[in-house]
Amino acid sequence: MPTKLLKQADGAGGKAMQEFLESVLVPAFSKRRIDNGLGIDDFDDGASFSIGDFDIVVSTDGHTVQPPFFPGGNIGTLAAAGTINDVAMMGAKPIAMTDAIIVEEGFPVEQLKLILESINEVAEKCDVAIIAGDTKIMPKNSLDKIVVATTGIGVVKRGNLITDHGAKPGDVVIISGPIGDHGTVLLAHREGLEFDTDLKSDVKPLWPMINKILPIGGIHVMKDPTRGGFAAAINEIATKSKVEIELYESEIPIREPVRALSDILGLDPLMITSEGIAVIIVNKDQSEEILKTLKQTPEGKDAKVIGHVKEGVPGRVVMLTSIGGKRLVQMPYGELIPRVC
Amino acid sequence: MPTKLLKQADGAGGKAMQEFLESVLVPAFSKRRIDNGLGIDDFDDGASFSIGDFDIVVSTDGHTVQPPFFPGGNIGTLAAAGTINDVAMMGAKPIAMTDAIIVEEGFPVEQLKLILESINEVAEKCDVAIIAGDTKIMPKNSLDKIVVATTGIGVVKRGNLITDHGAKPGDVVIISGPIGDHGTVLLAHREGLEFDTDLKSDVKPLWPMINKILPIGGIHVMKDPTRGGFAAAINEIATKSKVEIELYESEIPIREPVRALSDILGLDPLMITSEGIAVIIVNKDQSEEILKTLKQTPEGKDAKVIGHVKEGVPGRVVMLTSIGGKRLVQMPYGELIPRVC
Repeated sequence: MPTKLLKQADGAGGKAMQEFLESVLVPAFSKRRIDNGLGIDDFDDGASFSIGDFDIVVSTDGHTVQPPFFPGGNIGTLAAAGTINDVAMMGAKPIAMTDAIIVEEGFPVEQLKLILESINEVAEKCDVAIIAGDTKIMPKNSLDKIVVATTGIGVVKRGNLITDHGAKPGDVVIISGPIGDHGTVLLAHREGLEFDTDLKSDVKPLWPMINKILPIGGIHVMKDPTRGGFAAAINEIATKSKVEIELYESEIPIREPVRALSDILGLDPLMITSEGIAVIIVNKDQSEEILKTLKQTPEGKDAKVIGHVKEGVPGRVVMLTSIGGKRLVQMPYGELIPRVC
Repeated sequence: MPTKLLKQADGAGGKAMQEFLESVLVPAFSKRRIDNGLGIDDFDDGASFSIGDFDIVVSTDGHTVQPPFFPGGNIGTLAAAGTINDVAMMGAKPIAMTDAIIVEEGFPVEQLKLILESINEVAEKCDVAIIAGDTKIMPKNSLDKIVVATTGIGVVKRGNLITDHGAKPGDVVIISGPIGDHGTVLLAHREGLEFDTDLKSDVKPLWPMINKILPIGGIHVMKDPTRGGFAAAINEIATKSKVEIELYESEIPIREPVRALSDILGLDPLMITSEGIAVIIVNKDQSEEILKTLKQTPEGKDAKVIGHVKEGVPGRVVMLTSIGGKRLVQMPYGELIPRVC
């Protein structure tokens, strides 16, 4: 029997990774949750457990983005924002973060300082404390520059946790901003493709925005479409919530350069990673107030209603196209762009 | 001005790393603790914050050990035990763990499974749940096989936290087992040096042992001597506790092969990494019961009293040698063996 070797797609956020997680990773662990909290096999943005009157939310991510500096941010911005966003997506106030930084010997100290400053800048915006860390230096040529693993910790009043499986028929689907900026910028930057534009990665912490809409209530799902892009996020939500989701193609915000590059390279912008937007699925009654509030924040100023939830076929995501047709939005198989986050 | 580049020693647990952390890492972060908890600049085994009547302990570590499989364990054993031990050293019951695994494309899936099983085995021994994780695959040649970053979370009744700065004059210094096994085995294995012995890494979770002695009370400090070895750990304790520590050379347990290899290579066994022992500094009144209890556990069966704490010169560690002399035990500059944990 040939030895099975890990392939890129196994860690890329799509169908291949789901299969890998379900067949290899999760079954290896016997205790995967604490009491009734969310655990590793919920595949949500984070896990949770209860202490007294609070739910503690924990999220972890390894970041391998290449190159470590890109238009709009760097691996530090990405690691800090990514982790804070995962905690915020669960309706929890991020309070603390830890980082494990692994760097190649010979990496310039000044560049590391810039990365640390970016981690700090993101943390400061959300009043998150960086309470613990670890730094390891690997010998030259045993690591391509730097990887950063961050763990975020948040707190939410017991019972107020928001998951990615709470969408209900009748709900409204909101997106907080244009999709695909981060992946597109990385790809263009790496391939040396120049745009006549100032397109930057959308990487940013979403807690200040989320913090504004939580008090309104009626939020059933939040998810940031990172690996596998919007297509992966919306399919996960539909499958886990056991609902059908209908999307309005003409309403989905995609910037012109993202559309142009996708066209040239034959990519589907729905499958390109974003790092600073959220899919927010809300009760119809609160949807107008939530949209209005989002639009008043710098992070959510381009927020739009892009679809609705219905009973339909559980797990199905349908795009109502601009020309009046319908097509299925598929779960991507893998990430089209490696080392994007 | 020449560009300053990161060197191995900057991440190696000794004086160079202390300087690096103090000059580069810590100043980059503005909020480094939550309220009165332990923060990143305490450089303890972990950080802490309070929720209701509990202190939550958080510890994080990146693991880069090379090779990933070694006599006595693998990178999974090491990552899980290392994180659980850091939490346990603070007197907290480890309850949850997260892992961020970054693997080189082409790594055999079977080997990854063995690593995951080892993580699970350690977690099971301590009833720790693996609640969240992340897996990234890096393209071939951009990472030497695999790194694993783990974060551990523990809980302790408020006020019962144990730090590495609580040693008091009159206290007794206990070590729970022989020192230097892990680093020696790795070095020997890597260099192809064969021993006529079954020396293995001492890597193991210490919570079952710690759990037995905590109820006795009187424990002022616990620390596992990993990077920088026993010498780094004991110096940190003396400096942070502002006390002098006197050690009895003849009582410090070192296995014969560790001594032999150190002699051959000119290494000081006091500076070689251990991954399954603890320095425990206790009130004299409880020291006999603690020692007796330790000796009844499989992890602590070779425990010994190896010194005492006095007022003396704060931060000084003195070895009372077998021939009746005295010498200073220095803080190592860096780790002598790269990628040991």
